[in-house]
Amino acid sequence: MGEIEVEVDRLWGAQTQRSLQNFRIGTEKMPSELITAFAYLKKAAALVNENIGKLDAHKAQAIAEAADEVIAGRWNDQFPLAVWQTGSGTQSNMNVNEVIARRAGQLLQARSGGDPIPSIHPNDDVNRSQSSNDTFPTAMHVAALIAMEEKMLPAIAQLKQTLQRKSEEFADVIKIGRTHLQDATPLTLGQEISGWVRMLEKGERNIKSSSEELRELAIGGTAVGTGLNAPKGFGDHVAAAISKLTGKRYTSAPNKFHALTSHDEIVFVHGAIKALAADLMKIANDVRWLASGPRCGIGEIRIPENEPGSSIMPGKVNPTQCEALTMVVCQVLGNDAAIGFAASQGNFELNVFKPIIINSFLQSVRLLADSIHSFEEHCARGIEANREAIGRHLSESLMLVTALNPHIGYENAASIAKTAHKEGLTLREAAIRSGHITAEKFDEVVRAEEMI
Amino acid sequence: MGEIEVEVDRLWGAQTQRSLQNFRIGTEKMPSELITAFAYLKKAAALVNENIGKLDAHKAQAIAEAADEVIAGRWNDQFPLAVWQTGSGTQSNMNVNEVIARRAGQLLQARSGGDPIPSIHPNDDVNRSQSSNDTFPTAMHVAALIAMEEKMLPAIAQLKQTLQRKSEEFADVIKIGRTHLQDATPLTLGQEISGWVRMLEKGERNIKSSSEELRELAIGGTAVGTGLNAPKGFGDHVAAAISKLTGKRYTSAPNKFHALTSHDEIVFVHGAIKALAADLMKIANDVRWLASGPRCGIGEIRIPENEPGSSIMPGKVNPTQCEALTMVVCQVLGNDAAIGFAASQGNFELNVFKPIIINSFLQSVRLLADSIHSFEEHCARGIEANREAIGRHLSESLMLVTALNPHIGYENAASIAKTAHKEGLTLREAAIRSGHITAEKFDEVVRAEEMI
Amino acid sequence: MGEIEVEVDRLWGAQTQRSLQNFRIGTEKMPSELITAFAYLKKAAALVNENIGKLDAHKAQAIAEAADEVIAGRWNDQFPLAVWQTGSGTQSNMNVNEVIARRAGQLLQARSGGDPIPSIHPNDDVNRSQSSNDTFPTAMHVAALIAMEEKMLPAIAQLKQTLQRKSEEFADVIKIGRTHLQDATPLTLGQEISGWVRMLEKGERNIKSSSEELRELAIGGTAVGTGLNAPKGFGDHVAAAISKLTGKRYTSAPNKFHALTSHDEIVFVHGAIKALAADLMKIANDVRWLASGPRCGIGEIRIPENEPGSSIMPGKVNPTQCEALTMVVCQVLGNDAAIGFAASQGNFELNVFKPIIINSFLQSVRLLADSIHSFEEHCARGIEANREAIGRHLSESLMLVTALNPHIGYENAASIAKTAHKEGLTLREAAIRSGHITAEKFDEVVRAEEMI
Amino acid sequence: MGEIEVEVDRLWGAQTQRSLQNFRIGTEKMPSELITAFAYLKKAAALVNENIGKLDAHKAQAIAEAADEVIAGRWNDQFPLAVWQTGSGTQSNMNVNEVIARRAGQLLQARSGGDPIPSIHPNDDVNRSQSSNDTFPTAMHVAALIAMEEKMLPAIAQLKQTLQRKSEEFADVIKIGRTHLQDATPLTLGQEISGWVRMLEKGERNIKSSSEELRELAIGGTAVGTGLNAPKGFGDHVAAAISKLTGKRYTSAPNKFHALTSHDEIVFVHGAIKALAADLMKIANDVRWLASGPRCGIGEIRIPENEPGSSIMPGKVNPTQCEALTMVVCQVLGNDAAIGFAASQGNFELNVFKPIIINSFLQSVRLLADSIHSFEEHCARGIEANREAIGRHLSESLMLVTALNPHIGYENAASIAKTAHKEGLTLREAAIRSGHITAEKFDEVVRAEEMI
Repeated sequence: MGEIEVEVDRLWGAQTQRSLQNFRIGTEKMPSELITAFAYLKKAAALVNENIGKLDAHKAQAIAEAADEVIAGRWNDQFPLAVWQTGSGTQSNMNVNEVIARRAGQLLQARSGGDPIPSIHPNDDVNRSQSSNDTFPTAMHVAALIAMEEKMLPAIAQLKQTLQRKSEEFADVIKIGRTHLQDATPLTLGQEISGWVRMLEKGERNIKSSSEELRELAIGGTAVGTGLNAPKGFGDHVAAAISKLTGKRYTSAPNKFHALTSHDEIVFVHGAIKALAADLMKIANDVRWLASGPRCGIGEIRIPENEPGSSIMPGKVNPTQCEALTMVVCQVLGNDAAIGFAASQGNFELNVFKPIIINSFLQSVRLLADSIHSFEEHCARGIEANREAIGRHLSESLMLVTALNPHIGYENAASIAKTAHKEGLTLREAAIRSGHITAEKFDEVVRAEEMI
Repeated sequence: MGEIEVEVDRLWGAQTQRSLQNFRIGTEKMPSELITAFAYLKKAAALVNENIGKLDAHKAQAIAEAADEVIAGRWNDQFPLAVWQTGSGTQSNMNVNEVIARRAGQLLQARSGGDPIPSIHPNDDVNRSQSSNDTFPTAMHVAALIAMEEKMLPAIAQLKQTLQRKSEEFADVIKIGRTHLQDATPLTLGQEISGWVRMLEKGERNIKSSSEELRELAIGGTAVGTGLNAPKGFGDHVAAAISKLTGKRYTSAPNKFHALTSHDEIVFVHGAIKALAADLMKIANDVRWLASGPRCGIGEIRIPENEPGSSIMPGKVNPTQCEALTMVVCQVLGNDAAIGFAASQGNFELNVFKPIIINSFLQSVRLLADSIHSFEEHCARGIEANREAIGRHLSESLMLVTALNPHIGYENAASIAKTAHKEGLTLREAAIRSGHITAEKFDEVVRAEEMI
Repeated sequence: MGEIEVEVDRLWGAQTQRSLQNFRIGTEKMPSELITAFAYLKKAAALVNENIGKLDAHKAQAIAEAADEVIAGRWNDQFPLAVWQTGSGTQSNMNVNEVIARRAGQLLQARSGGDPIPSIHPNDDVNRSQSSNDTFPTAMHVAALIAMEEKMLPAIAQLKQTLQRKSEEFADVIKIGRTHLQDATPLTLGQEISGWVRMLEKGERNIKSSSEELRELAIGGTAVGTGLNAPKGFGDHVAAAISKLTGKRYTSAPNKFHALTSHDEIVFVHGAIKALAADLMKIANDVRWLASGPRCGIGEIRIPENEPGSSIMPGKVNPTQCEALTMVVCQVLGNDAAIGFAASQGNFELNVFKPIIINSFLQSVRLLADSIHSFEEHCARGIEANREAIGRHLSESLMLVTALNPHIGYENAASIAKTAHKEGLTLREAAIRSGHITAEKFDEVVRAEEMI
Repeated sequence: MGEIEVEVDRLWGAQTQRSLQNFRIGTEKMPSELITAFAYLKKAAALVNENIGKLDAHKAQAIAEAADEVIAGRWNDQFPLAVWQTGSGTQSNMNVNEVIARRAGQLLQARSGGDPIPSIHPNDDVNRSQSSNDTFPTAMHVAALIAMEEKMLPAIAQLKQTLQRKSEEFADVIKIGRTHLQDATPLTLGQEISGWVRMLEKGERNIKSSSEELRELAIGGTAVGTGLNAPKGFGDHVAAAISKLTGKRYTSAPNKFHALTSHDEIVFVHGAIKALAADLMKIANDVRWLASGPRCGIGEIRIPENEPGSSIMPGKVNPTQCEALTMVVCQVLGNDAAIGFAASQGNFELNVFKPIIINSFLQSVRLLADSIHSFEEHCARGIEANREAIGRHLSESLMLVTALNPHIGYENAASIAKTAHKEGLTLREAAIRSGHITAEKFDEVVRAEEMI
């Protein structure tokens, strides 16, 4: 394959450089969350290798220290590889191996006082007892679980709390219900929002229960799942070490042949994300429809004005946070399609669609978490009830006629409602005009607050 | 493989029966449009084989006659096989061969006057010069083009015409525009609907131009595309014969290796269908939102009452035709995902996902065409403008303030609009109260009809 | 709306008939599993209504009996409505109400001995304390859970058991591993299959854990979630009654506003189904590639010959069960896209995409369960190892060279492998020819059975 | 809304800054191709405004010059906004307006020699006669067409040419065909590759024909499609000016209400891209399967070794270019789902999912074009036939038995093939042993070269 030049100030080596040159595709880089997960893994592996006597202590410590620097984000610019590379992610595994080996060597040298030091080898030392085929899926699960617990769940919790507060705040605001976009029986604005809160609770629950599957790590399977060249128990030890380093609970996957070839866990968890995304589409749509207007829409709530609307029209508040959120939902549904397809394409001992699977997964988490935060901060938090519009709709609505049924019979009630609809009267006007009921009786009987 | 029993009153034979027993999967049968296309193909092949001396004239005529009966729908119950069978569709090709052979034999016998007749063989006679691998994709294209021209395009044309009429009918109905669901500058209801008409025109155009690709037939390629066992020119002759029988123009695909392994034509045409489906979602949503109410929604149009709404509430007209149509759109988008995936999974000389590809395609066409017709007949045709609501919205809207800019300056105009918004005034009230303009001048200047 | 005629031998009434005429769209009927679930619900509601004094005991018993007949499948032809109807499924709720009311009336009459009997009303009796808006999503969950537990899980269990047996049967069959489709280090055929078993275990686990969400029922929410017109506790009682009738555990959803507007449970469970589907694609692909040949493919396993292959070529066994299964996977992925999209489109107090959601869901379950059974019975069960081919590949492979590393060093070993590759020698030949190792030593050291 | 600070070295203004702060979502920036298209548009609009006397010539020239600098890429770092912003893309329109206005001001000032200069306003000057609602979709089409013609089509052409050359180079290499992954009748490697060439031709054709739709521009429609505030003919003049500047042909969309609310053109063109992507999946899969081995796969072609394979196994060439390409295909299918969904979600006078639509579209083009180039350069170009393996497979195959039919009859031929299969003989051995044919006759008759 010949020689290959790497610029002198790079920590990476030949394999990274070759990938850089051979895969000039797009602008998407291997996600930083994955690189961080890889660094946890490399540190854990070094410590375990040291413990079981497979790696010199000085080397192990230097590797651990270099990995810590990667975790801290110090070397972010040293991981330049595209998502669109070999489907096993081997080149990114080697990128991590090369950078950590080089940096660990620098650290050893710095403290050697000029004494000759043992060189640290990307494969023999940093990658010891490992293969790309088990490290890449391990890093996928480590990164995915951290993303879910550190980004997704807090975002959901925050929005849930805000909406819970809104639900309580509007517990007494009785409004018209709408089904099929048509006026229906009443409920409170608090009840309406409680449905959104429940969506977030469900999303949280689904994400938590499905994410359990992410705890199983492929490490220890090496090249094809048999664990060739890995010491016995290596997977268990490394899983324990990663757990300690990250504060998350990981275990060694009981069947490594599965762990290298299947990404059913990612598909399953992303299904939970998609379920939440579908709910968020509904919430964001409700918010912008309820806020539509100001004069010619529904206008039952007000949302914050964050940017100038049109330079002509005051009062025009575009629901831009809803728009950003719903676009993110589209992306998440697209990602779900890509992930499912990619996960189905494994052959024999390996699925070689790993980079796109983890890239799409982490993008979904990042975008949803960010846009939920943004929506919470710049929109949900500032929702106000437009009690005037809500009251007007409620009083104009015809469906409160239901309350008359026990008093004047369904037929008479229906006839009142029909008259009101046809002649543009209020229900009260039509009822009184019908002669079936007095104004006093009407006011006594037709009370939305009894119907919620 | 042993013996297999077929009930005596069936026209099908052993291969069909075996498939029936081995693939008890779901309820989806191979679509009837495809069986019809197969019958055209078998008739065309018999006539060509006769012409080039490869098939006895009596046999050919009997096969043609039996195929005509299949086309006429007489033997619909003789094609019981599931979509979920062999991915080449071989079993359905054999089902057609067996039924036509058996029926052709009956026809020959009926007119033989008791004389011994030559038996007609499913493979040697009906399938002569053919293979499942070229007949199935041929039938796919024949069926797909007929479905597009006979079902899809007429449905689009009908709805387009109806909406065109509505657009003209409402050419003078000035209404408020809405962007981001927020009130914007005005347009006419006719203009709004003209956008829908244009969507249908585009759909029509995209479907027509992409459907050109369906004219290329695989026939003549036989087992792997080389045309082994098919006489020279067979593909051209059969394509010409099918064209004559169906009244559609078909040609022999110039590269048969492509024709057996790629379904890019189907993916492409379905992309045009999907583009139309996305537009129909928009149209149906606009219709139901504009018709929302009757009191607490937008209510600018009225749509026909087709079914009782709630037993309680008169005036509640659920936009059920919109709902059926938008559900169909979801199915079409799902089918698009299934088709793209399936089309990508060919290997070497064959793609063995043919049945699902054609089943999904024809389902999309059937559902869209039917639901467009239903929507046209039961909804679009009966759309009426609610001029009262439209007028009220227009007069209440604040954005007509724009018209004051040239007369009193942007700052003053903006201040008027802000006051109106804040204090719940009409624009006219706020303008007069501001002292910047008289009532007469306001009425002269603020005219929505100049803004469209 | 005028009069409407219903044929005299129908049990259904005006609302069903109207839907039949207004929605002539496609061939997909509301799934029978949903009708059965509706019948359980109507029976449960009648019994609860009776218990709380809201329904006459004679009527309740007649309704229960009529519902039992529906459950038994006696009236399958009385539910003719299309999936593509109103998005709340109201028309199918009314179809069930009408059929049960009519049939219950017949039952009452039959035992009245000519005495006048009270008429049974579809709305006032069968639908008492209910609304389409809570019954339809209730029936969705009842049907979905039954489908998962009665169809999906048994199918998975059966295939898992069969593959587990195969995994044990082939525990000693050492074969070459393949990653990136390229020869890799060895494993046993049993290990390879154990990965498939694990996929099924995971699928089972994911389906079970996510299906817990289906236990929550919307019943009790009525029109908009407030429970207007339903007696207090109605939802709990009905959930308990359905549990008793079906033997499944159901509860009343704690938030009915969610239950009417969100289908996150269905999206989530279908995500688990999709994860399994992606795994099944992988398994089916592995099976057909391992069985490819007979002479020019991989040919390491044999699968049953179920149908005649080509009339020309003996030994050609097309992997048709794999093909049917992988086409089903495409459909499931398409359904997943349709479901996610539809679930995102709710507005205010209702999601009106319910029929497509449940139709797609049940289709996925039906197709996957059936095709898994079919694949198990007609393919997996009959998988045999082609030990000759497996052995030949293993012995021809070059990667066993790894075993020489400790004895002659990596460089020498690599050079032997390169020579073998270049000159087309076996590893053994090249090793001996190299002079670095004797034949005896080679045979002692290079042992695949130590590498698994 | 209060004051907002912008760093002094930025060219952007308050609206950009506000978006930057309000939409901290993800890492995806508005694509540079779109910014370039916007710059063409702003230049064209300035020149047209100047021509029709709506803009001072000095200002117009300065705007044009500033736009040229944007096109040249000089200000790439001045467009920091996220894709996930307002769904109309207003904020990016304003970003462009602000940057160009500021930069044009600097240019005017630089040449004013200290004289006071008129300030250039982002809205009144740069955005004159325009609205975000017509400029954003205009920029979408301008960018999309350029991407298709400058990136996608050249990439396709290059790979097509390379494969065409390979098809000719291997025109005489007779090989076994495979259908259902099973051995079938022969064809040449050149023929097999000709099917791939045809896929690229089709892709090219579909892309060209569908891209015609991209020529229609929304410009001239302004806020809601009526063209309020735009001079008559503005759309036509700007379309002509953009055509001149870009060398592409654009026209003014005949119906602006469609142009603001529908993205059927993008959906349709992306459908053509998806059809190509499905074909590329097939091509890449064929390449890697044909190259599988080196000892235990099919191994009929060799592809370039671009990176070290395993450190253990020489001869292991992972088909990494195929892997990158097939991952890109998954992304394109995911994007297709996202685009279709987003395009369906317009309401009234605007579709507010524009940023995700164009971002996904341009990502698909970029990734496919890049990965096609990469695949062409690093893989396709270096494909070599492994004539030894091809010949061995051909000679071992049993299906050449077909050629014996005319000489010894189907029954005898079938029996020979069965014997060969069962006893592991070559066809020739079994034929001679059968006594039905001599070795000389066999060699004379069984000739694959007659079967292609």
